Amino acid sequence: MQTTAAFRGLSCTACGASADPDEERCPDCGGVLAPEYDADEVASADDARPFPTDAAVSIDEGATPLVAVPTLADELGVASAAVKDEGRNPTGSLADRKLALAVSAAVQQGADRVATPSPGNGAQAAAAYAARADVDSKGFVPSRCPFLNKAMVNVHGGDMYVVEGRYPDAVAAFEGSDEAFTSVAPGHPFRVAGGVALALELLDDRAWTAPDAVVHPTGHGETVVGLERGFALAAATGLVESVPRLYAAQPDASAPIADAVRDGVADPTPVDHPDTIVGPLEIPDPAAGAAAVDALHATDGGAVAVPDEDVLQGAVDGCEMGPEVGATGGTAVAGVRALANRDAFAPDEDVVLVNPVAGSKEADLLRSHLMSQGL
Amino acid sequence: MQTTAAFRGLSCTACGASADPDEERCPDCGGVLAPEYDADEVASADDARPFPTDAAVSIDEGATPLVAVPTLADELGVASAAVKDEGRNPTGSLADRKLALAVSAAVQQGADRVATPSPGNGAQAAAAYAARADVDSKGFVPSRCPFLNKAMVNVHGGDMYVVEGRYPDAVAAFEGSDEAFTSVAPGHPFRVAGGVALALELLDDRAWTAPDAVVHPTGHGETVVGLERGFALAAATGLVESVPRLYAAQPDASAPIADAVRDGVADPTPVDHPDTIVGPLEIPDPAAGAAAVDALHATDGGAVAVPDEDVLQGAVDGCEMGPEVGATGGTAVAGVRALANRDAFAPDEDVVLVNPVAGSKEADLLRSHLMSQGL
Repeated sequence: MQTTAAFRGLSCTACGASADPDEERCPDCGGVLAPEYDADEVASADDARPFPTDAAVSIDEGATPLVAVPTLADELGVASAAVKDEGRNPTGSLADRKLALAVSAAVQQGADRVATPSPGNGAQAAAAYAARADVDSKGFVPSRCPFLNKAMVNVHGGDMYVVEGRYPDAVAAFEGSDEAFTSVAPGHPFRVAGGVALALELLDDRAWTAPDAVVHPTGHGETVVGLERGFALAAATGLVESVPRLYAAQPDASAPIADAVRDGVADPTPVDHPDTIVGPLEIPDPAAGAAAVDALHATDGGAVAVPDEDVLQGAVDGCEMGPEVGATGGTAVAGVRALANRDAFAPDEDVVLVNPVAGSKEADLLRSHLMSQGL
Repeated sequence: MQTTAAFRGLSCTACGASADPDEERCPDCGGVLAPEYDADEVASADDARPFPTDAAVSIDEGATPLVAVPTLADELGVASAAVKDEGRNPTGSLADRKLALAVSAAVQQGADRVATPSPGNGAQAAAAYAARADVDSKGFVPSRCPFLNKAMVNVHGGDMYVVEGRYPDAVAAFEGSDEAFTSVAPGHPFRVAGGVALALELLDDRAWTAPDAVVHPTGHGETVVGLERGFALAAATGLVESVPRLYAAQPDASAPIADAVRDGVADPTPVDHPDTIVGPLEIPDPAAGAAAVDALHATDGGAVAVPDEDVLQGAVDGCEMGPEVGATGGTAVAGVRALANRDAFAPDEDVVLVNPVAGSKEADLLRSHLMSQGL
């Protein structure tokens, strides 16, 4: 595999063992693998990537803006609040950063077909990057996957299996499939690498001054793991002097990571009956759950679970204050409000919210919420 | 009005008269007004803007990527092809650049309510920027306006009048309204200024080497006017040595500007029965039609009209080759193909396509096209 000077390989988040870059999980213990970089070779955000430009599949993902939201800062009683708007990626979600790298790795391994289970956005991104690389793709999505995602998978020429039921049924179909494909599924080490890149870029946006806290809507937890690694890497390079506390925000009806943090449990317990309006975060058994809990603790951060009602109100309020956020991003708005209510932030602190999905992609959910209020 | 050092005021595209920055149309002749900049004060793309940061309403619009599409370049037989992906703006369309500036001007004039007629995206952008500036907004949209746009206008807290019929009916309702508001309607001089900024940024993306041709899906023609002004400004500053030929691409069932270019007419004749699947471009009587025809001629460019079938195929092919484009952006893909067929490009030329709207925002149209093909 052709990699950058900075990329040193993969290591297991659970047991610390090194692993070859073509492994999907730790061969020793099955743990989530994360990329390792040589801090001496990282002098800019652009250096913290695994593949050189000519070995990477790209549609110019990333380089998203960090948009100041002063109205929210005033409400929270903090020095500043800003939204890292990942909706401004090629297919409108943070999944682009992750699938760009996972598909790049698969193509380098000689894959002619990639596949992933997904609530929707991941399948769309996988189809887009596979098409760009001229390889086939297949998305395993649950029947509740939004029409928009299904449509765009088809438009990119991707195959799709719409599995009756919810996301775990799509995972079961993916895992039970006897078709030939290379997995780019949640928990993939190069998906985690997308989170590392996001962390470095966010610090670069702030001229290498770390915020005090970052609130991230969390499903599988792989981005949380990447963010923590990225912040630690930036500190190791000396580019920043401190790292932010990292908080996972989840809808309370599907909050295995937040529940584990609350209960002091290392490995999240799968949620029996997840039922949230936030489809992308209805992940009852996260692929990187234990690693995410570890990562949150490592930053001295935490997690927060918020009701759907607050999520939707957060989304609508977010749209009025700053960049468009949908229900997924609204989870960060609701989460940051709940955290402020429990005095998680000091008045002189800078807080960043990650918006993982373009508001326009979830317009139907937001409109329904207004309807329910009689608007 | 608080303006930048580079901004010199407005001038009429028809009669050349100067006008105050708070005029919407030329007081002398009713022509479209465009911004004038002092070339000596423009040393970077960022200088070509009318308002300083602290007098501008912004959600960090612009800074969109120029994505290379080598597969398309091969097909067209040109040296390079790239898509300027304006779908990666805050509300997913190029309208953001235009409404950011038009709303900024309105707010500086003391407006507490802005309004525009719109097929959809303009109303969404107006509502977003008005909300960001904490002023009211109203969109006059036709009943065929997509659900997504209507939903997001509401989510931003904007008022909306859904006018029975098509876009001209929405314009009539807007023009006949006796409500108090400040217009940010198509043809507004600071909408044109958004096109100027796009031109400079596009040249900056290419390290100040002009492409040979730019193909732009065109409705009202205001962005075409801005692009021509921007390219001419960049040449006047010495930042580039040449300017690109500019081509307007329109769906053939609603192609007043392309028809005027074909027929050698200076002022486009309104289309009696426009009927295209490309809603954003179903503009039978463009607000900046004559100015756009002038601008196209000034660059030695032209225009092209393409059938809806080719537009939709262009969109789907575009999604497989590079960034997601919808029906609106598919008009550029179909247009550049038609232009290549008539030998508009030399083999050593660089061609840029503008994608005005995120593909995800028009997923339903693309999916329908696949359905019609039995896919």
